[in-house]
Amino acid sequence: MSKTVISSPSKEVTIGFGEPFVMIGERINPTGRKILAAEMKQGDYSRVESDAIAQVAAGAQMLDVNAGIPLADEPAILAETIRRVQAVVDVPLCIDSSIIEALEAGLEAYQGRALVNSTTAEEEVMERVLPLVKKYDAAVVAISNDETGISEDPDVRFEIAKRIVERAQDYGIKPEDVVVDPLVMPIGAIGGAGNQVFDLVRRLRRELKVNTTCGASNISFGIPNRHGINNAFLPMAIGAGMTSAIVNPLHDGLVQSVRAADVLTNNDKNCENWILNYREPPKEGEAAAGGREGRRRRRRG
Amino acid sequence: MSKTVISSPSKEVTIGFGEPFVMIGERINPTGRKILAAEMKQGDYSRVESDAIAQVAAGAQMLDVNAGIPLADEPAILAETIRRVQAVVDVPLCIDSSIIEALEAGLEAYQGRALVNSTTAEEEVMERVLPLVKKYDAAVVAISNDETGISEDPDVRFEIAKRIVERAQDYGIKPEDVVVDPLVMPIGAIGGAGNQVFDLVRRLRRELKVNTTCGASNISFGIPNRHGINNAFLPMAIGAGMTSAIVNPLHDGLVQSVRAADVLTNNDKNCENWILNYREPPKEGEAAAGGREGRRRRRRG
Repeated sequence: MSKTVISSPSKEVTIGFGEPFVMIGERINPTGRKILAAEMKQGDYSRVESDAIAQVAAGAQMLDVNAGIPLADEPAILAETIRRVQAVVDVPLCIDSSIIEALEAGLEAYQGRALVNSTTAEEEVMERVLPLVKKYDAAVVAISNDETGISEDPDVRFEIAKRIVERAQDYGIKPEDVVVDPLVMPIGAIGGAGNQVFDLVRRLRRELKVNTTCGASNISFGIPNRHGINNAFLPMAIGAGMTSAIVNPLHDGLVQSVRAADVLTNNDKNCENWILNYREPPKEGEAAAGGREGRRRRRRG
Repeated sequence: MSKTVISSPSKEVTIGFGEPFVMIGERINPTGRKILAAEMKQGDYSRVESDAIAQVAAGAQMLDVNAGIPLADEPAILAETIRRVQAVVDVPLCIDSSIIEALEAGLEAYQGRALVNSTTAEEEVMERVLPLVKKYDAAVVAISNDETGISEDPDVRFEIAKRIVERAQDYGIKPEDVVVDPLVMPIGAIGGAGNQVFDLVRRLRRELKVNTTCGASNISFGIPNRHGINNAFLPMAIGAGMTSAIVNPLHDGLVQSVRAADVLTNNDKNCENWILNYREPPKEGEAAAGGREGRRRRRRG
């Protein structure tokens, strides 16, 4: 039972087998968001803060924070973004950058135990990211590609993930602190992309006993009604054993589909979280008329 | 690759591994529908007909037809219901009764190759239903309970299903014409109900190589926001290998969740059915302005 524990000063989140699925909110990312990028560059973090609050309110248990803005001082901006986000929400964060100095600045600024996003199996990347992960006692997302790019062969992607997990151990990072991203391909381009990921997740869980994550919305890239695909993909991935994903919790129906999957895998014990979120309100006048009975009924859901 | 072929005079539906999931519409059933029961008893089939049309329009590839009305002439009503339904829709039917005479009257009236719903492993039931299935060259739903009732132990339910498949072979019915219902328990009462079904479906597929079905909405009995649970349950069951289910295709989001699962299992090749149903309409004025280009764009989806 692999458990990856990520924390903020006041909250601990466990990504793990037998745990509720962890949704990592993806919104705080200036890539493809021109207005947000310009604001962050100018030191205006109001949208970052409101995006953080909205995602947590929608159900995200963690947030990914990325400050990849061309020609900007990414380390400084990422660190400040993390401070601002930690000031308004209490969930643990995933520190997301492809620039090592930004990761380090982010880890330095972060209060708690972070998830570093990410290393690949590229030698140069592992050599720089893994010591940092160890130094800050963080966990790390391992993306299953290497110098040769992303393989379409799931067996190759499995072997690459295995290589990262082994290399991490050389640096003193336990397998339970490596969260593998098996890489989700667009189903519109590769018809077998869904089955590939489900098989890979099952195998990573069974053979490497590691937690998994992914950029879930990739699956529906380029086809219509993307939410419809994403909202079925997540329950299926969870059924195959995936334990976390980077998602937009504000997308219609997404959080509900994940919570339902938690009920169905019995990781939402006694449907407690489900009932808390979706119990029907008492009928008109029932609470007033029923008094204690009305309240009791609501508690039962 | 087990294939159960069901047909009407003009349509053939294959329940099978590697085939799109088959949704069997459940609405034509007077159980719990007082008005419908009264109408059917009086020979008024207008609601039966409109329910048939609506379910097929919503996406059901087959319809279940049940005429279980207390103190009524079930064989005659079931036969007439089948005739009326076949007159307004062209999908194959599932003939549903616990009364052997009604099944026989239904099979006699039905045009095509029917799915008989159902036999259990109760000796008396198998002895009466299976010869009928053979006589009419039908397929049959095998519900995994016996004289001792429904076991909470999935291993017992597997053994019971196996017993029915073997007995069916004694009567000359091939395993591919037995569609096993592993029995879906309410998740609100049995926390492991989801995992149980997913495991059973995988096992039935791997070891007995049979198709599977279930009354899907049972899973959410007694808990709030049932559609939310059902719409995650179906993709997860499909991911585990389930090949058909008895559902209400008019329920919000249900058909979409099944179609998305078909995309993700690669049983909707090139997302063709998905794109057909969910492609975005051309933007205002685009078709008119674009002429041939507008049409081409739409065709591409």
